[in-house]
Amino acid sequence: MVTATRPSHAPFHAVDLIRAKRDGGELSDDQIDWLITAYTADEIADEQMSALAMAVFFHGLTIRELNRWTLAMINTGERLDFPDVARPKVDKHSTGGVGDKITLPLAPLVAACGVAVPQVSGRGLGHTGGTLDKLESIPGWRASLTNEEMRRQLSDVGAVVCAAGPGLVPADKKLYALRDVTGTVESIPLIASSIMSKKLATSCDALVLDVKVGSGAFMKTLDSARELAQTMVEVGGAEGVTTVALLTDMSVPLGLTAGNALEVEESIEVLAGGGPPDVVELTVVLAREMLAAVGYDDHDPAGLLASGAAMDVWRSMIKAQGGDPDAKLPVARETDVITAEQDGVLQSLDALAVGEAAWRLGAGRARKEHAVQASAGVQLHAKPGARVRAGQPLITLHTDTPERFARAHEALAGAYAIGDAAPPERPLILDRID
Amino acid sequence: MVTATRPSHAPFHAVDLIRAKRDGGELSDDQIDWLITAYTADEIADEQMSALAMAVFFHGLTIRELNRWTLAMINTGERLDFPDVARPKVDKHSTGGVGDKITLPLAPLVAACGVAVPQVSGRGLGHTGGTLDKLESIPGWRASLTNEEMRRQLSDVGAVVCAAGPGLVPADKKLYALRDVTGTVESIPLIASSIMSKKLATSCDALVLDVKVGSGAFMKTLDSARELAQTMVEVGGAEGVTTVALLTDMSVPLGLTAGNALEVEESIEVLAGGGPPDVVELTVVLAREMLAAVGYDDHDPAGLLASGAAMDVWRSMIKAQGGDPDAKLPVARETDVITAEQDGVLQSLDALAVGEAAWRLGAGRARKEHAVQASAGVQLHAKPGARVRAGQPLITLHTDTPERFARAHEALAGAYAIGDAAPPERPLILDRID
Repeated sequence: MVTATRPSHAPFHAVDLIRAKRDGGELSDDQIDWLITAYTADEIADEQMSALAMAVFFHGLTIRELNRWTLAMINTGERLDFPDVARPKVDKHSTGGVGDKITLPLAPLVAACGVAVPQVSGRGLGHTGGTLDKLESIPGWRASLTNEEMRRQLSDVGAVVCAAGPGLVPADKKLYALRDVTGTVESIPLIASSIMSKKLATSCDALVLDVKVGSGAFMKTLDSARELAQTMVEVGGAEGVTTVALLTDMSVPLGLTAGNALEVEESIEVLAGGGPPDVVELTVVLAREMLAAVGYDDHDPAGLLASGAAMDVWRSMIKAQGGDPDAKLPVARETDVITAEQDGVLQSLDALAVGEAAWRLGAGRARKEHAVQASAGVQLHAKPGARVRAGQPLITLHTDTPERFARAHEALAGAYAIGDAAPPERPLILDRID
Repeated sequence: MVTATRPSHAPFHAVDLIRAKRDGGELSDDQIDWLITAYTADEIADEQMSALAMAVFFHGLTIRELNRWTLAMINTGERLDFPDVARPKVDKHSTGGVGDKITLPLAPLVAACGVAVPQVSGRGLGHTGGTLDKLESIPGWRASLTNEEMRRQLSDVGAVVCAAGPGLVPADKKLYALRDVTGTVESIPLIASSIMSKKLATSCDALVLDVKVGSGAFMKTLDSARELAQTMVEVGGAEGVTTVALLTDMSVPLGLTAGNALEVEESIEVLAGGGPPDVVELTVVLAREMLAAVGYDDHDPAGLLASGAAMDVWRSMIKAQGGDPDAKLPVARETDVITAEQDGVLQSLDALAVGEAAWRLGAGRARKEHAVQASAGVQLHAKPGARVRAGQPLITLHTDTPERFARAHEALAGAYAIGDAAPPERPLILDRID
């Protein structure tokens, strides 16, 4: 007979909640509020929360449970609220991929239309890069802002990309670290509540989600990505935030770069009216979604890239956070070039392999306390569908620590194929959910 | 991407094992050995083990995994081995119930036939009593023996009932405490490995399991009890120990007492050739199983109760552990009698309710560090099927702390019914599995 201890003031036994969820039951609003609050306050043990998270992995959460869970997580911290920022506020979140630098051109582009974009971002782990890591390759740029600095920049510049302060959803910091080591990351309601609690805590009017699908993404299949997207759209709606999700392809890397300074450079090309077509397409499509969500449908994002208006906001945004938009970006001390073995058409280029190669070269980290190399990464000279000739450079590896080349080559073994026929066209935008 | 830390010498990531089991995979022998050893050595975190235990709750263990898991648990401690005890050694385990004092008459009875019974027992928790708690109501009796004392008593007396030393399956102590607070007790492979690791560590030739079924038992249904019994019989067989299980009824209490000194008194009645018929029946049936398992089929346990031979071993067994078999047992300071409201036949008497009443009166404990009252408990004056008259005593409550009567009455509300017809007969022995 289980007779776990309970602080005398606690309204529930943690073990009763675990058993209820384990047996397919539903937790009440009061139980969820207590669970999240008490766990964040260290009044529920990690071993109890991980067992409960595993039960959630198997039984899921109902939409009512999930909405309450997300709300309870938000309520463990402070909401970022900017009532005196007159512009409508729209946020965007990507579930993460390889070469996904879209936030960099997107935030200034949307801000150039008069909308405020307060984007709280993260750092990378494993093969997926982090937006803050990328921006930190710009000399002087700093990720940490006070709420007052954030508010002022939103009013003055319109776009902010910064790190979460310690007060933003502390429940998620603790719970994510737990899930990471207990095999409970891969649960759609837990993923959805983790993402949405942080996004809804910034009190935006609308939120656009870019849910990645494919080898380089967290969600490997269209079905699982669609389920996550639908779940997050429901949670956003329940909190009164217009929420739209796009499912986008992450079977090949986005653009031609994966790395920190390399991706900043590519983003600046896009802001200058150039850049790889897929990066431009996704930036413009997401900008249109963000603008439409707050009734700014009459703006033309593509035109604002061409005109340099978005670049002007980018420069202000970087300067406002201490960065020098004109500074030379770090360049890797060593490069190594992979060339095509034969003539033909590039058939495929696996996103996960490219992401792992960039990580191995130093662009990413295995543990969150590790540093990244600003200059390390992978540069692609061809994307699937391109005709290549034997001996032509396909991929350039960049790193400050050449002993890393071997691991990058390992990661890229079998990551691409050259053939005769043109590969099937892959749409970038796979679905839209609102 | 999960990138948990791992000590550099560890052959596996705990999170990989959790995910494998979570996704329905099988763990290898090496993985199981490492998991159990490293967890016992505090090299795997509680939150990882509880998540894995919850995954086992959902996916189970294959019989190969379970056998290895049990063996790995045994190997975290020392085996109790008594090579110079010439008698064959047989152990018995009950999964616990209300009024289950069978070990007390059974161990000396089987020893009286020339078989050694080295029974490592536990204390009670919640509504189920513990054999050691019962014996400790005998003045002077002590539960803790050294291995040498145990060996000598086995040779000289034949029967030992004692507490597990700290070296016996330390993995189980740690894992059971974790399961207790994480909602992972109710997993058949985890229950089976917990029981069988402790029983197989005493190196007996045979083992007889008494798997209780009904409201007062851990297993509420015949199906779940049968599954547990079959699982344990397989694990015992795999370790080369002749293992037999009986499924026995625990929907009503065993005998007429639930409590510590009260049950010792009833056991002495059985050893004196009297006692309630159900206690005598189960004692004799289990004794026959234990004897048959080592080829001692020609002994007559019922005769040895009647002749006083079992009582002689009982007295030696109690004396060998410091107890005075002639001492007066503690008597409760206060009693309270529940009488029949009407004439009729007692239809039912719920084992769980009686167990909870005994617990509330002080016979049991809510937490393992709590003490129990030796004299507290419930005395029954009728069992289902008995004819009763209005005003006749049905149940006497015993306690040293009369403020506990109210909780005991609460537990017993609705626990019995008086009607006109005779209730259906309930067999005590429900099934036998070998």
